[in-house]
Amino acid sequence: MVSESASAYDAIVTLFLEDVGTLFVVNQKGYLAGVISRKDLLRASLGNKTLEDVPVGIIMSRMPNIITCAPEESLYAAAKKLIDFQIDSLPVVRPSEEDPKFMELTGRVTKTTIAKAFVELGSEPKV
Amino acid sequence: MVSESASAYDAIVTLFLEDVGTLFVVNQKGYLAGVISRKDLLRASLGNKTLEDVPVGIIMSRMPNIITCAPEESLYAAAKKLIDFQIDSLPVVRPSEEDPKFMELTGRVTKTTIAKAFVELGSEPKV
Repeated sequence: MVSESASAYDAIVTLFLEDVGTLFVVNQKGYLAGVISRKDLLRASLGNKTLEDVPVGIIMSRMPNIITCAPEESLYAAAKKLIDFQIDSLPVVRPSEEDPKFMELTGRVTKTTIAKAFVELGSEPKV
Repeated sequence: MVSESASAYDAIVTLFLEDVGTLFVVNQKGYLAGVISRKDLLRASLGNKTLEDVPVGIIMSRMPNIITCAPEESLYAAAKKLIDFQIDSLPVVRPSEEDPKFMELTGRVTKTTIAKAFVELGSEPKV
C-alpha cells in the first residue's frame, strides 16, 4: 500500500517489495482512496516527467470509480468482475463502521487467486 | 510482438497497442527468442537510462530459459505452470519443422485465459 503523495517511482519500488501487480492507495485514516496498476505506472513511465515527480494521486483510479468486492461475494462473482472490467485485481472492502461512506480494505482477489482456485479444482478440462 | 533491438520504450507502447501484459520477442525468422513482462519493463523504468536507450534484448527472459506450453497441453497444466513459476503468460509453441531447435509461436495462455475459463465453468464455489 502507498499513500497518494508517494511518487510513481516509490509505487514501482513498493510493487516489487510487496510482490504484487496492483497497489491499493489509502488515505490518512487508512480507507481505500485509489488503485494503481502496473499499466498505470507503465503509462506514467512513457511521460516526459521523471517518475520521482509524478504523484500516485494523479495517475491512480480514484474512489468511487473503483471496482471492488465484498468479503461475502463468491469467487465466481469476483472472477466475473475481473473479466468484465478487464482488471487484474479487486480490493475486498467493507463499509467503515465509523462512516459507511468510506471503505476499509480487508483483502484482495486477483487473477492469480482465480488461477490458483482453478488449479485446486483439479479438473482437467481439455479446452 | 517486438524484436530484440526494439527499445523498452517501444515495448511499452506495443503492450498498450496490443492490449497485452506480456510481449513475446521473436528473432528474424519469427521464432521465439524471449519474453518480456510488465514487471521487466517497470524494473527498467527505475534505472538511470532513458527507456529509449534500453534494448529489449537486455531485459527480456531469453530462450531456453522460458516456460512454454504445447498446443495439446490441458488448460489445467498451463494454469499450474503459471502458478508454479509465478508468471502471467505462457507462449504456446511447437518445434519448427525446419529446425526443431527453434520454437514457432502459436498462441498464448494467460491468467486472463484461466479466469475466463473459471467463469465459464460457471460453478460458484463459496471459497
